[in-house]
Amino acid sequence: MNDKQFQQVLSYLKGLQDSICNSLEIIEPDKKFKQDAWTHANGGGGRTRTLRGKVFESAGVNFSHVLGDKLPGSATAKRPELTGSGFEASGVSLVIHPNNPFIPTSHANVRVFRTTGGGNVNDDNKWWFGGGFDLTPYYPFDEDIVHWHQTAKDACAPFGKEVYKKFKAWCDEYFYLKHRKETRGVGGLFFDDLNQWSFEKSFEFIQAIGNAYVAAYLPIVKKRMDTPFTEQHKAFQKYRRGRYVEFNLVYDRGTLFGLQSGGRTESILMSMPPEVSFRYNYQPESGSEEEKLYDYLAPRDWV
Amino acid sequence: MNDKQFQQVLSYLKGLQDSICNSLEIIEPDKKFKQDAWTHANGGGGRTRTLRGKVFESAGVNFSHVLGDKLPGSATAKRPELTGSGFEASGVSLVIHPNNPFIPTSHANVRVFRTTGGGNVNDDNKWWFGGGFDLTPYYPFDEDIVHWHQTAKDACAPFGKEVYKKFKAWCDEYFYLKHRKETRGVGGLFFDDLNQWSFEKSFEFIQAIGNAYVAAYLPIVKKRMDTPFTEQHKAFQKYRRGRYVEFNLVYDRGTLFGLQSGGRTESILMSMPPEVSFRYNYQPESGSEEEKLYDYLAPRDWV
Repeated sequence: MNDKQFQQVLSYLKGLQDSICNSLEIIEPDKKFKQDAWTHANGGGGRTRTLRGKVFESAGVNFSHVLGDKLPGSATAKRPELTGSGFEASGVSLVIHPNNPFIPTSHANVRVFRTTGGGNVNDDNKWWFGGGFDLTPYYPFDEDIVHWHQTAKDACAPFGKEVYKKFKAWCDEYFYLKHRKETRGVGGLFFDDLNQWSFEKSFEFIQAIGNAYVAAYLPIVKKRMDTPFTEQHKAFQKYRRGRYVEFNLVYDRGTLFGLQSGGRTESILMSMPPEVSFRYNYQPESGSEEEKLYDYLAPRDWV
Repeated sequence: MNDKQFQQVLSYLKGLQDSICNSLEIIEPDKKFKQDAWTHANGGGGRTRTLRGKVFESAGVNFSHVLGDKLPGSATAKRPELTGSGFEASGVSLVIHPNNPFIPTSHANVRVFRTTGGGNVNDDNKWWFGGGFDLTPYYPFDEDIVHWHQTAKDACAPFGKEVYKKFKAWCDEYFYLKHRKETRGVGGLFFDDLNQWSFEKSFEFIQAIGNAYVAAYLPIVKKRMDTPFTEQHKAFQKYRRGRYVEFNLVYDRGTLFGLQSGGRTESILMSMPPEVSFRYNYQPESGSEEEKLYDYLAPRDWV
């Protein structure tokens, strides 16, 4: 990946942040995203955009571009030949926590890494992409989940027959709370280390995934945002958001790497839900609406 | 530590759980602790006691006694000669989240480990103790913190001149959120790997610490429990509880080891605050009551 190509990716990512924020603002009546632009001590920086509104209780869409002297251990574990190399990385990462408990929480990310020489690196243009999106319902509707996965599958289709299947399975595996024996939600796509294709094909794929997120999520938001809900629905949503906290702080590699390596804490933790409750040993009542969710927290074929 | 001695410790720990629960119930008007007794697949088990009341929004006091075939990596990192050894461990661990934001959250733990042979272990009675207690205020009062530390210091005094100082410093170091550059609260005591004294002296020390917790905490609860508070105080408490969540899920070795090694999830996570809020980039207003707390989140000599 040469400089020009890397700049193309950066340019796409910034535009993606813009277009996602614009799309979300359309259905949020009175609020706009606020931006914090920040710089990082090692170089680079980002634009963190957040919104607290009526439809979106808390929405965060972050763009970052960071530089480093030395690839983190988490990046070189599977690539020992890159140890000691400098790098630059960029990505868009977002988490949307809606107010209405019938709208699922959603997360999306697309990211690029490129080495910048040093260490054992002979070729200073090693690169890879990662990303995906996943959905976390509180009161699941099959038709919403099918739409989400169908959109994911359609986005993957031009890139090969097995692409959706492979990255869907990876998502189920990644977003898993081992201590709960539960998936975080109903999945979607997750991929990392994507460099087996040409730069052009990989970059097209990233764009297909980035662009598919709004197409996958917004129709669900629109369909459920006016559904009446009770205090009980809200309480269950707050309780289940605790699982989101558990996953992100105990397992999520991006979060942990960010926190432990001196990333911008507020941008990393904007993924946290706005209001959360923890209740010792809560179990939904047998036959309740709430109990139904627990049947969805294991991998399933949706399309 | 022979079997008889280990049984003595177990017996003390169970009694400590009883006496702490009794002491807390005295000032909680209508509620009693509920107990879940549980067993662990590898042997052993525990008694998890929780209470949701008026004074104590959420209180959890856990006793556990677990057995294992193989000491965890976290326990052998500093003791490679014990690799592969079986073990048994027991402890009392508690976290109290009061309702009134003028009462600090408190945490206490005392624990014992003993090897049971296997691996490289020639002597199957290697043992060590750990424990401590620490305080996390939302609206700090110097006199409360001085009382807390004075009680800790008095409990340590019979065991040596440097004991309080050393374990107070260890507490400040351990309960530190690196990504926030904040201590979790105003500290207290923390110690681990305690085996340099005789069994008798070590066991006496554990008892002194276990017994001091109620003496350190209850007077603060009684003094602050009737202080009137506003929605704003409550909101700040919920916000700051987010730091408790961050510490416990990102850094706390006991929590992470427990979750990753198949411990009883609900007993481990009973430390979570009942209601929490996360707010992107919140900063207390300059000169506000809330801002005052931030001056307390660095180590300080209290007594």
